[in-house]
Amino acid sequence: MHLLAIGGSDGGISAALRARELDDAVEVTVMLDDEFPNFSICGIPYLVSGEVADWRQLAHRRREAIEALGISLLTSTTARSIDVAAHRVRATDAHGVERVIAYDRLVIATGATPVRPPIDGLDGLGAADGVHLVHTMGDAFEVLATLEQRRPERAVIVGAGYIGLEMAEALTRRGLAVSLVEALPQVLATLDPELADPVTTSLVGHGVDVRTATTVTEVARDGDGLVVRARARLDDGAATPVEIRAGIVLVVTGVTPDTELARAAGATTGARGAIRVDQGMATGLPDVFAAGDCVVTHHVLLGETYLPLGTTAHKQGRVAGENALGGDRRFAGSLGTQVVRVFDAVAARTGVRDREAREAGFDPRTVGASGDDHKAYYPGATTVDVRLTGDDASGRLLGVQLVGSVASAVHKRVDTAATAVLAGLTVDRVSDLDLAYTPPLGSPWDVLQVAAQRWLADGRARPARDVAG
Amino acid sequence: MHLLAIGGSDGGISAALRARELDDAVEVTVMLDDEFPNFSICGIPYLVSGEVADWRQLAHRRREAIEALGISLLTSTTARSIDVAAHRVRATDAHGVERVIAYDRLVIATGATPVRPPIDGLDGLGAADGVHLVHTMGDAFEVLATLEQRRPERAVIVGAGYIGLEMAEALTRRGLAVSLVEALPQVLATLDPELADPVTTSLVGHGVDVRTATTVTEVARDGDGLVVRARARLDDGAATPVEIRAGIVLVVTGVTPDTELARAAGATTGARGAIRVDQGMATGLPDVFAAGDCVVTHHVLLGETYLPLGTTAHKQGRVAGENALGGDRRFAGSLGTQVVRVFDAVAARTGVRDREAREAGFDPRTVGASGDDHKAYYPGATTVDVRLTGDDASGRLLGVQLVGSVASAVHKRVDTAATAVLAGLTVDRVSDLDLAYTPPLGSPWDVLQVAAQRWLADGRARPARDVAG
Repeated sequence: MHLLAIGGSDGGISAALRARELDDAVEVTVMLDDEFPNFSICGIPYLVSGEVADWRQLAHRRREAIEALGISLLTSTTARSIDVAAHRVRATDAHGVERVIAYDRLVIATGATPVRPPIDGLDGLGAADGVHLVHTMGDAFEVLATLEQRRPERAVIVGAGYIGLEMAEALTRRGLAVSLVEALPQVLATLDPELADPVTTSLVGHGVDVRTATTVTEVARDGDGLVVRARARLDDGAATPVEIRAGIVLVVTGVTPDTELARAAGATTGARGAIRVDQGMATGLPDVFAAGDCVVTHHVLLGETYLPLGTTAHKQGRVAGENALGGDRRFAGSLGTQVVRVFDAVAARTGVRDREAREAGFDPRTVGASGDDHKAYYPGATTVDVRLTGDDASGRLLGVQLVGSVASAVHKRVDTAATAVLAGLTVDRVSDLDLAYTPPLGSPWDVLQVAAQRWLADGRARPARDVAG
Repeated sequence: MHLLAIGGSDGGISAALRARELDDAVEVTVMLDDEFPNFSICGIPYLVSGEVADWRQLAHRRREAIEALGISLLTSTTARSIDVAAHRVRATDAHGVERVIAYDRLVIATGATPVRPPIDGLDGLGAADGVHLVHTMGDAFEVLATLEQRRPERAVIVGAGYIGLEMAEALTRRGLAVSLVEALPQVLATLDPELADPVTTSLVGHGVDVRTATTVTEVARDGDGLVVRARARLDDGAATPVEIRAGIVLVVTGVTPDTELARAAGATTGARGAIRVDQGMATGLPDVFAAGDCVVTHHVLLGETYLPLGTTAHKQGRVAGENALGGDRRFAGSLGTQVVRVFDAVAARTGVRDREAREAGFDPRTVGASGDDHKAYYPGATTVDVRLTGDDASGRLLGVQLVGSVASAVHKRVDTAATAVLAGLTVDRVSDLDLAYTPPLGSPWDVLQVAAQRWLADGRARPARDVAG
């Protein structure tokens, strides 16, 4: 039995590790098109910031450790086509030499590629000009080269999602003046505006020039440097042109699934064009599984969607590896649980927000609550802001968003909510949770429970709903 | 309608607040035998340490805030007897004047009193001698008086449970040399020995003289100071006498429910002699409810037990207040979730440990796992040690214990486990949880999930169980 995984990041490696864990006898190969198997690309911002001194540290496991488990690595090898009937993959290695690899079971984990937004001039510029899309280790090295060789004083980051915010912090830490440009009216559009505000405050407090409601229209060379042109929407609806000069421009506006190989082999696609798999990670093609950022995401509350996250890729890969060996594991589903640290602020979410819930057929209501992370009498208490969404029809907890300081442990508070949502608990039940308390580290009622109690009280206070409405 | 609560701490105040929240018209009175309604007695160690500068800060709510809600406070008023048939409580005020208070619904929340262990000389010594049992605000003032007036250089703390550890830290912070004496073979006997060890290491690292397996037999005056005599058990089973001189001795060996008033009125008692209530907090006496450290604890996994905790008292009080007004709320049950910070170490647990589970009829198995609190490549990672107990018969998660640094957010990690146990999740399902990850604050697989995966793998690896055994 030979299991071949195409892709050396979370999905492919997790599949390989799981197969090896379950069966010592199976032959396991991971093919990847660069030299960086099992690297933590989520760590790139911390390499760029200098907090991680050596890129080798970003390996979840060293190459030797993977090989010591009996997993063969075919690096710098690009899969070109899959012959599903013959159970063969045609690939080319670093020297352009074609290789044909036979498999019994295949796991496609080709990941995603960065979106190239429609910005004039972007296609003609690249790393040599100081314009970067940031996704792979190779991209990270190019960013570092620009920083070290061109020594830019100013940066423009296009896109204020998770990666944009992390890169804004990273470049600020390196001493650059950073402009963060976002077409939407707020940073972190995955959070309600009420909770994005404290994140913006943290960014601005650390010197980042935050420009929301500003759509980049052009990037161009400007002498030795670059110029970014954009259109800022004013409160009155009018637009005003913006021009920002910079020595480096990062474009981080999301990713799109890399499905070319799978589609050519006959795989069907679903949400956002990602490879369609069932919850067992089967593609429908005989003996072909897929996992990670290239596949659709089964969401606990939303059904099929596309929500590429490292944690999800790990879980999907593990399922794919188990089922490729004949197992019957199902991916339990994503809640889109995410967390980002931006300087001293942490923002997190799990489950769905009000609008997402409504679109999915729920009857949602959302409340906000704020509370101290621990008893105010003990020094150092900071505020945690929560927004909680529940379903009025069933009482079920649908989602929670939180913002607070690093010390307030927002990054673990969200896990309590994620557990409650996955378990299908009602909002009422959240108030019943027996959570831990000691004055320097908590409150007798956690702020999540305060939010739950407010949601319940508001529900009782509401006039009866107009059924016809 | 007049609701009377006897007891001004978590149980009584929570009942009063809940009643007020539900019905503006109900008359609500809280009777308490000191001048400190709604004080956070969990905060006493931080008052003693000096981290909380003013004792008034320990009030969860100021007296005026409670009264502004329309709750009457009868302070320094001690309930003497309850006439259940007549719905009347006889009490005496600070001047010894008898008062009779009529009620429609009564909530007994008399709390607990410190255990006085069988130590020769203890009964003849008190605060004036520098010997203290620490439970009430009054006790705290006496400890502070001893510290300020006698300026002791050495302290002996008898009992290495939660309060003993917190007081050891508090007195160390004040500059005292502290001996912590515990009859059991480990500190924090509520944790498995493997996890108590790092707590001991933290104590010893901060200069605390930790003496486990040492039973205090006598406390005596010794010139201006005190001497504590004890018997230390050696590894070979022999015992050796120990004598420690100190200027202050704290005896913190647990509490026992204060039930005299309720028993005299006809209430029945259950586990550890606590007042028996149903999950609605009804005592069985007409219109008499009870809550907090004076009542039995309904445990999610163990049924009726006695596990006095502030968080539980808040929840029970809230249920009692709601049901006293005719509601039909049930206390969802305790998991004994607890956390303690000892210098820079944090220890937490939820649910049951192996032996407790076995005694309760489960088929438990426990595994240990350790992991970094966040990706090791990002600076500052520390180790979190976990022990996870699951039920082999059902696969259900029964309990989790954790130890780590303050920065590792052990205090919120335990909440994830508490939520999973309350929701009845299997260990397998823990591995499926969609938890948050960002490199500076987590790992793609949380250490709790690593422990769950190990538990499952070990279970599969085990030989089939001998059914006859």
